Amino acid sequence: MPPDAPPLGRRIAAEGIGSFLLFACVIGSGIMAANLSGGNDAIALLGNTLATGAILFVLITMLGPISGAHMNPAVSLVAASRGDLRWTDAGAYILAQMAFGILGAWAAHLMFDLPTLQLSVKARTGLGQWTGEAVATFGLILTILGTVKHRPQWVPATVALYITAAYWFTSSTSFANPAITVARSLSDTFAGIAPADVPLFIVAQLIGAMAAALTAKWLFSDRAA
Amino acid sequence: MPPDAPPLGRRIAAEGIGSFLLFACVIGSGIMAANLSGGNDAIALLGNTLATGAILFVLITMLGPISGAHMNPAVSLVAASRGDLRWTDAGAYILAQMAFGILGAWAAHLMFDLPTLQLSVKARTGLGQWTGEAVATFGLILTILGTVKHRPQWVPATVALYITAAYWFTSSTSFANPAITVARSLSDTFAGIAPADVPLFIVAQLIGAMAAALTAKWLFSDRAA
Amino acid sequence: MPPDAPPLGRRIAAEGIGSFLLFACVIGSGIMAANLSGGNDAIALLGNTLATGAILFVLITMLGPISGAHMNPAVSLVAASRGDLRWTDAGAYILAQMAFGILGAWAAHLMFDLPTLQLSVKARTGLGQWTGEAVATFGLILTILGTVKHRPQWVPATVALYITAAYWFTSSTSFANPAITVARSLSDTFAGIAPADVPLFIVAQLIGAMAAALTAKWLFSDRAA
Amino acid sequence: MPPDAPPLGRRIAAEGIGSFLLFACVIGSGIMAANLSGGNDAIALLGNTLATGAILFVLITMLGPISGAHMNPAVSLVAASRGDLRWTDAGAYILAQMAFGILGAWAAHLMFDLPTLQLSVKARTGLGQWTGEAVATFGLILTILGTVKHRPQWVPATVALYITAAYWFTSSTSFANPAITVARSLSDTFAGIAPADVPLFIVAQLIGAMAAALTAKWLFSDRAA
Repeated sequence: MPPDAPPLGRRIAAEGIGSFLLFACVIGSGIMAANLSGGNDAIALLGNTLATGAILFVLITMLGPISGAHMNPAVSLVAASRGDLRWTDAGAYILAQMAFGILGAWAAHLMFDLPTLQLSVKARTGLGQWTGEAVATFGLILTILGTVKHRPQWVPATVALYITAAYWFTSSTSFANPAITVARSLSDTFAGIAPADVPLFIVAQLIGAMAAALTAKWLFSDRAA
Repeated sequence: MPPDAPPLGRRIAAEGIGSFLLFACVIGSGIMAANLSGGNDAIALLGNTLATGAILFVLITMLGPISGAHMNPAVSLVAASRGDLRWTDAGAYILAQMAFGILGAWAAHLMFDLPTLQLSVKARTGLGQWTGEAVATFGLILTILGTVKHRPQWVPATVALYITAAYWFTSSTSFANPAITVARSLSDTFAGIAPADVPLFIVAQLIGAMAAALTAKWLFSDRAA
Repeated sequence: MPPDAPPLGRRIAAEGIGSFLLFACVIGSGIMAANLSGGNDAIALLGNTLATGAILFVLITMLGPISGAHMNPAVSLVAASRGDLRWTDAGAYILAQMAFGILGAWAAHLMFDLPTLQLSVKARTGLGQWTGEAVATFGLILTILGTVKHRPQWVPATVALYITAAYWFTSSTSFANPAITVARSLSDTFAGIAPADVPLFIVAQLIGAMAAALTAKWLFSDRAA
Repeated sequence: MPPDAPPLGRRIAAEGIGSFLLFACVIGSGIMAANLSGGNDAIALLGNTLATGAILFVLITMLGPISGAHMNPAVSLVAASRGDLRWTDAGAYILAQMAFGILGAWAAHLMFDLPTLQLSVKARTGLGQWTGEAVATFGLILTILGTVKHRPQWVPATVALYITAAYWFTSSTSFANPAITVARSLSDTFAGIAPADVPLFIVAQLIGAMAAALTAKWLFSDRAA
């Protein structure tokens, strides 16, 4: 964090508000899309993708100058590992992401007149999907670190468009975020994931994130060789 | 308003032209989408969303330097409450938004060979939808105030993309605008709302707007603590 | 034209290449969309819209610095009427737009294994559609003149997104361009228009363009009153 | 290459990682789209287009400052022919694009639980499609060279949006890239092409690329005449 960063309270609030709106959007747009699409999942995924990409651009533009707009524990952990964020701050970020993100899931349920407390029964498992999560998170972290390095004003666009693509090209539809994986397990809707399938998704995400952090350290280095 | 702002007449004209084109687009693209989509409402909402997001970017880019391109009484009221706009000017803005917005709805009817004068019969009511409107307007005002503060050149993009997302993630499809709520009650088409359901939508919108104005005052403050 | 503008030959070539690619895209993407959409015209219009908006952004970014990237006689006439382009140059621009635009239509036919020479039989007529064309062209010219005045670097984005919206919110799907209206009359495909319906479309377009030029002269003026 | 370009090893890695993710995205999103679209190929192509355009913007923004982010032998050959890249470097670029691109195709198969080694049986042949490839590649190279000349910061956007349009307006859905043509022949999925049809696609692509390089040399020249 730069010395003129806002105080921690405001940064935590930014992470909380961002995660609340992001997770409400991911889950809410999935409900809307499934409700309206007449069973054609490609049409539903188009709506879900459009909404998710759009809100990511908005939230990162608006909240990035406050907290960095991580809204994702994998991003906060990578930031801490690079010395860009204190480890204790990263812990606070992650708690806010989890807590307010789950509130966002519940807000989506409230808006669509569904029971608040749910558990997903949608199985998401197998080598293909784990590979999908590792590739998805690898690409996300690489995108963030590469854009921050050379073209920081484009971070909202590259993150939004990366997730737009990854919803379609990974078999898991690219969760790429441990907090949203947990929140989605609490929603038995289009975007859900069975709780039993959460741990291996998170393991795959963290493997992809670490691989990207190591790759970026070399690829985006300033050294001449 | 800065001292070199255009004279009020031109600013009112900008609000009027903007609201005319915006409301004609929201309602007209809804008619087109419903006409062509063969009953699949997700496909219709995709077309409606694409058109609405696109015209918002255009109108805010083009008219923002003249009047701020509010096209929304909730935005004008928040601007007045912050001292960014005189209260009397806000009143004139809102009258222009309402009057020219309704003309925009009627222009959509004319273009699509429908009767000019209509009243919607589409019920939009219930705690879920009111929550949707409050969340939608909260997010819209927060997006505007946050982007204006730190990255003003991106306001057209963040507002357009926020509404793109909110059409999908709120159960009410995000009216988030008292003037357009009234205009849509005068159109018995895809985008309509029954007149009896208008007042509580507007109440929810104003609650969301006030909450966002208060949140933004603290979150985007320059103070160190 | 500024004194350091490229020579007329290169500017005419830019108008020709741009019109060729634009018209090939409008007509070709219509053919592709209709071929694949299984009769759902909303899905077809989504593909047609996406392709048209995207190519407009590309062509105006790439060719704008050479010729202004008009690709539209209404734009060239307005430019001449404002003294931004010599009348003789405008004539040459329009000839290039027409000739290369028609070649673009034929290239689309060639790519999709259709007979080169065709005449559309799709009726597009009536007060609603003429109003649509007048509104569509009014908005297009206003968008160009307003963006050029205050935020010139965003012209490719606003023009592309304006047409994206207007494909959906005008009943005529927004031709808004006399040259493309002629070229589309030579294609009996999704984007076609019966030759007999061309003249009144062009009249409506020119009325909308003139109204926008007059409006813009006042609205985007530098005068204090 | 400018004198401060990163060392060749990092540039080759950037081409490899970019091609891996690009080709995995083109093929993976095709598989996802076909799986979900219930046989409506227009809906499938919408998803495939959205993902491809989005990932192109991301990869060119992130990797452009390292290697130029060609991910396409036609682009590397044109760069070498203009003296912007050493011929030996172009050879290394092309090898990396081919090798890592094929790995990307296989990664897509792995993610979607398909056999790794496949050969496409989808016929893509005939004068229409070859014309499509020549036009597609002509437009791509012209877009790159024109944007680089006058508005280099917009290259990620114009390339992404050009391919977005060309997926729809060319009958071949715009491969426009010899390496991806080979990789797609190794995938018997939505994006595939029969190996026997590869050579003439590549010939058409190279003809289009050469024509664009010659056109650009004159059209985007600095000379006054």
